[in-house]
Amino acid sequence: MNFISDNTAGASPQVMAAIAAANDGAASAYGTDSWTQGVERRFAEIFEHEVAVFLVASGTAANALALASITRPWGAVLTHEESHVADDECGAPEFFSDGAKLIGLPGTGNKLQPETVTQALARLREGALHQVQPQALSITQATECGLIYTPAEISALKQAAAPRGLKLHMDGARFANALVTLGCSPAEITWKAGVDVLSFGGTKNGAWAAEAVIFFDPDAAAEMKWRRKRAGQTLSKGRLIGAQFEGLLADGHWLDLARHANGMARRLAEAVAGSNAVRLAWPSQANEVFLILTPAMQQTLKAAGVSYITWSDRALAAENRLADGEIVGRFVMSFATRAEQVERLIAALGD
Amino acid sequence: MNFISDNTAGASPQVMAAIAAANDGAASAYGTDSWTQGVERRFAEIFEHEVAVFLVASGTAANALALASITRPWGAVLTHEESHVADDECGAPEFFSDGAKLIGLPGTGNKLQPETVTQALARLREGALHQVQPQALSITQATECGLIYTPAEISALKQAAAPRGLKLHMDGARFANALVTLGCSPAEITWKAGVDVLSFGGTKNGAWAAEAVIFFDPDAAAEMKWRRKRAGQTLSKGRLIGAQFEGLLADGHWLDLARHANGMARRLAEAVAGSNAVRLAWPSQANEVFLILTPAMQQTLKAAGVSYITWSDRALAAENRLADGEIVGRFVMSFATRAEQVERLIAALGD
Amino acid sequence: MNFISDNTAGASPQVMAAIAAANDGAASAYGTDSWTQGVERRFAEIFEHEVAVFLVASGTAANALALASITRPWGAVLTHEESHVADDECGAPEFFSDGAKLIGLPGTGNKLQPETVTQALARLREGALHQVQPQALSITQATECGLIYTPAEISALKQAAAPRGLKLHMDGARFANALVTLGCSPAEITWKAGVDVLSFGGTKNGAWAAEAVIFFDPDAAAEMKWRRKRAGQTLSKGRLIGAQFEGLLADGHWLDLARHANGMARRLAEAVAGSNAVRLAWPSQANEVFLILTPAMQQTLKAAGVSYITWSDRALAAENRLADGEIVGRFVMSFATRAEQVERLIAALGD
Amino acid sequence: MNFISDNTAGASPQVMAAIAAANDGAASAYGTDSWTQGVERRFAEIFEHEVAVFLVASGTAANALALASITRPWGAVLTHEESHVADDECGAPEFFSDGAKLIGLPGTGNKLQPETVTQALARLREGALHQVQPQALSITQATECGLIYTPAEISALKQAAAPRGLKLHMDGARFANALVTLGCSPAEITWKAGVDVLSFGGTKNGAWAAEAVIFFDPDAAAEMKWRRKRAGQTLSKGRLIGAQFEGLLADGHWLDLARHANGMARRLAEAVAGSNAVRLAWPSQANEVFLILTPAMQQTLKAAGVSYITWSDRALAAENRLADGEIVGRFVMSFATRAEQVERLIAALGD
Repeated sequence: MNFISDNTAGASPQVMAAIAAANDGAASAYGTDSWTQGVERRFAEIFEHEVAVFLVASGTAANALALASITRPWGAVLTHEESHVADDECGAPEFFSDGAKLIGLPGTGNKLQPETVTQALARLREGALHQVQPQALSITQATECGLIYTPAEISALKQAAAPRGLKLHMDGARFANALVTLGCSPAEITWKAGVDVLSFGGTKNGAWAAEAVIFFDPDAAAEMKWRRKRAGQTLSKGRLIGAQFEGLLADGHWLDLARHANGMARRLAEAVAGSNAVRLAWPSQANEVFLILTPAMQQTLKAAGVSYITWSDRALAAENRLADGEIVGRFVMSFATRAEQVERLIAALGD
Repeated sequence: MNFISDNTAGASPQVMAAIAAANDGAASAYGTDSWTQGVERRFAEIFEHEVAVFLVASGTAANALALASITRPWGAVLTHEESHVADDECGAPEFFSDGAKLIGLPGTGNKLQPETVTQALARLREGALHQVQPQALSITQATECGLIYTPAEISALKQAAAPRGLKLHMDGARFANALVTLGCSPAEITWKAGVDVLSFGGTKNGAWAAEAVIFFDPDAAAEMKWRRKRAGQTLSKGRLIGAQFEGLLADGHWLDLARHANGMARRLAEAVAGSNAVRLAWPSQANEVFLILTPAMQQTLKAAGVSYITWSDRALAAENRLADGEIVGRFVMSFATRAEQVERLIAALGD
Repeated sequence: MNFISDNTAGASPQVMAAIAAANDGAASAYGTDSWTQGVERRFAEIFEHEVAVFLVASGTAANALALASITRPWGAVLTHEESHVADDECGAPEFFSDGAKLIGLPGTGNKLQPETVTQALARLREGALHQVQPQALSITQATECGLIYTPAEISALKQAAAPRGLKLHMDGARFANALVTLGCSPAEITWKAGVDVLSFGGTKNGAWAAEAVIFFDPDAAAEMKWRRKRAGQTLSKGRLIGAQFEGLLADGHWLDLARHANGMARRLAEAVAGSNAVRLAWPSQANEVFLILTPAMQQTLKAAGVSYITWSDRALAAENRLADGEIVGRFVMSFATRAEQVERLIAALGD
Repeated sequence: MNFISDNTAGASPQVMAAIAAANDGAASAYGTDSWTQGVERRFAEIFEHEVAVFLVASGTAANALALASITRPWGAVLTHEESHVADDECGAPEFFSDGAKLIGLPGTGNKLQPETVTQALARLREGALHQVQPQALSITQATECGLIYTPAEISALKQAAAPRGLKLHMDGARFANALVTLGCSPAEITWKAGVDVLSFGGTKNGAWAAEAVIFFDPDAAAEMKWRRKRAGQTLSKGRLIGAQFEGLLADGHWLDLARHANGMARRLAEAVAGSNAVRLAWPSQANEVFLILTPAMQQTLKAAGVSYITWSDRALAAENRLADGEIVGRFVMSFATRAEQVERLIAALGD
């Protein structure tokens, strides 16, 4: 049983069908095809707002391009110290932004608080010659630890950053998972709450390789076409990504897939809620479950053939929540996770 | 009839089938899947040599990563002044290499001659403090004008560059098309002739988005995994590219596709060989045909619904080969070009 | 006798005296001292225009910072193919601009013609996705070959570039030398003729290490303070540069120094005007004289202990102006060149 | 009375005399002059080791070039979270290194402990694809808070970093001040203790603008000449820096200047040792004194015309060492600080 990541699955059948359907006849290249253009319009509907959309093949590229478009080389991005952009992209934001600095901030469950932002800004003197200038705030929705920002929380973060004019970027690799939990509209957790640029993730939610950088102020995206091109992210046969999104966005398929994944996670979280054998590291609000595992439980899971990754223990260790030998295991559910797999995992955990 | 590019087609049925077959079950991410690893082994067989292989999603990324890996930021890449890397990638090689300089050299049909390389090197004083240092030579096989380098020609270029220790990069966006014309082995036009790094193109030859950077000295690729990752080119669901190459490389499918495209081009070139109405700009040696079109012929083709792109007239103008109003039209054949389309084009040209 | 460069001399006595006078008491750092601020005001008077001034320690830094401030990473700078920025700064403009491309254009004596600019722009399609976008035009005044642009010529170049909105940069490493020949005002050959950013050279004209980047639109310099700082060009004891400029600009000292250097060059040029033994490669319009030297004359000069550098023969060779074995020798006069040195050189040339 | 920084003074008379003495006759440019070459040899004697020396005009440039030469773009530099390179150079290390990441670590008085390094390395998985790779450790000697690393402490830090092969960089902006306190040889606190690259500061210690990047393994500096040149740090009239160092290094002048500055600081520190009115934030080990100042004392000093800067309170606040309204004031002594100034400051503090 593989709970390592939501990127270990392939594509959903509906996405595959959309690709197959798009594989017919000639289409103009470099994102000028009708699939891509249709998707761009579709995003405007979904977000109830004029948008500029740039499809790319990887989440790292989406995030790095988005951050580079709102941060000068001598600028700084405030973000959680263990966020994906800070810790898991091998310096891609620094590369794409020509050297901007990512300033890591603390926060339980990888979630930032407004006062943390306020304090960090106070340490960076406005206009100071010797210091990088804070220009962007990047949050992950759902966070890398599976927590969710409400619209009010996002607004509060934007407010905290507003006095210094920071743009707000949302890494939405698991945007759909957050959305279906919140039950609000896409607009409410993006531009209505102050998000300027969104990395809208498709890959983890049923696509092969489909991410979209979405600007809610299209004017701010005037140079993005060159930025994306010179980064090697403007696919010649652009309909490959366009078609994936077409399949994903049709008939709420993306939301159905996220609901399924979240449901699998909720089932697991509820099952272990009263357990003596394991405990939750953080509440499970999207499609991930983080469990504190004793050495014995680690052995049990190994024997049961359960795969998961050992998560950073930095935050929990700081809070003294881990006993000797205990680790944090991450269990990720995807559109492809089957209920019986979860039940087998629950059974193993119950041993 | 669309002869605009070999990137206007989708993927070949066999490639689509390979993707579909790969879409089953969990696979480890970021290029550690069995499809990708199988492809890496397959390339070693194809090239009869130990290789380090890095799959990416676009040709621009492949070229830029390859050049960056053999050129320091204060280095220079010698290349044709109208090569794809110099003229059509929006500065991607400069971006990926952190500012290296591309030095454009002349040559008929975008083909470089050894003496041109020798002369260029003579102008760049070895070890000079004030000048960028030449470190790479990049050639395109087949060239952007559809010409082919023989193994002996490649060797001669490498020899010309050898006194200064330049690494030889081959942009093989149309590698297969060159190969089937030459009828030699992949080894003979790469490492045996002095090629150090190859951008092996799949996209223009029947894949959706599949390119491989191939190092013939695996040691030289020691840092490439980080270079690729921070460029956002390490797809999480890496099997998407792995599977495309699996489909393409199985049973010589890639060579069959190239043979078909070349055959279509040859048919067109032969048909116009004796024409009074149009003439070839350069011999057609791969899957492209460049025709000098009078104003009248441009009108005729427009009326017939033939799409093509107007090619740079810089080289031909320099050679005084264009009469007033004449342009160079590029007609590209792909795996998907049908014989009857070519016949209709020939008929139109014959009008 | 050393005619190698105008950077082989030290500083003029008046500049040294200004440094010594400034070496007293505490001064605020990083360019907020009174010397620097006085110089900034002085430049506004000299140019009869509001300016933003950034002092730096090297000409390469001045040029690279200036170009980076008007060119995006995916932008292109049009410049002469053998200009200092293109050929003698080891890729500094590419480094400071995060990878912009310098596009080299031909022109006799390193001087650009408006039609050359027009033609180059025609080859770079406006807004094209795949191509770097031309954003700056850089000219050298006086050129590296000692030629001068008149105000009308500069205006014509700006006009040629205007349809595409290019900013005009002037590398004024020998600005003073050009100015005293033209006999016009500093304003007339800069902002009145369309120059947007000027690298104003002090080093070659009697300073130790003093260059100024001057923006004629101060708003365009809003981010320059950070750009300069992170490039390590904001000296802590900034008055070192401020004082040099103070000494240089006081009482027209800079113009006197340039007049002296130009006079030495004119004396040499006039002396060889009717010579059978040597001939001028280009007219001498500033402080440099370029002589075509036969093999015999090269020997003669060597025997006489005359030092000079061998200049690029690319342009003259293209014009078939060099016989076998002939080279172009560059003889540069500085504020420190003494008349008797020039007379001895003339005598040697007359042998 | 100005205690703001050791960069508010000018140059020492001996340094000025050396510049004046060097201002005679022609000298070859770009660091090939005899002054620079003499200085390079002098450094080899001072450090009792073969060295490669690169003179530059600013400390930011020295540090950024040094770090860039030992860190790949996807590499990381471990350093104190409030070190000069991390916090006061506006992202210069990121710029020069093409995007490497600086990872800030905690430590009292800006001093790093070996176990902090060990813990940080444990969080960066060796060879991990998704993470920047730690490649350099940078320490400041004396630290920005005026503390000193002993040879044994430096060795211990190098040992902590050794298992991952990190190169050790020392920011020696106040190297002389540390050295005279320790009373050891330059070799003992550099290469003998594991330092690979040293930024040797002259500017804060009596020069105008003179810093040296010193490699103790000259082979590691093979590409540095280009790196420095394209950064605009290779002054054409290089003897300006060469002469400053000549003046500074002759007859132990640099050590005398540092001894004077340290002595002034010691006098102040001793005077306040038993004070009820102020207390030391950290021991004063070099030429800086950090005092915790009550609101009343801040007023007193203002009234007395004493200038100083308010230091970051981050570290002390974390240790709960500041009462409400208290700040940390930094008082820096330089070669030019006069004893009577210090006495007046002491008198003011005693009020």
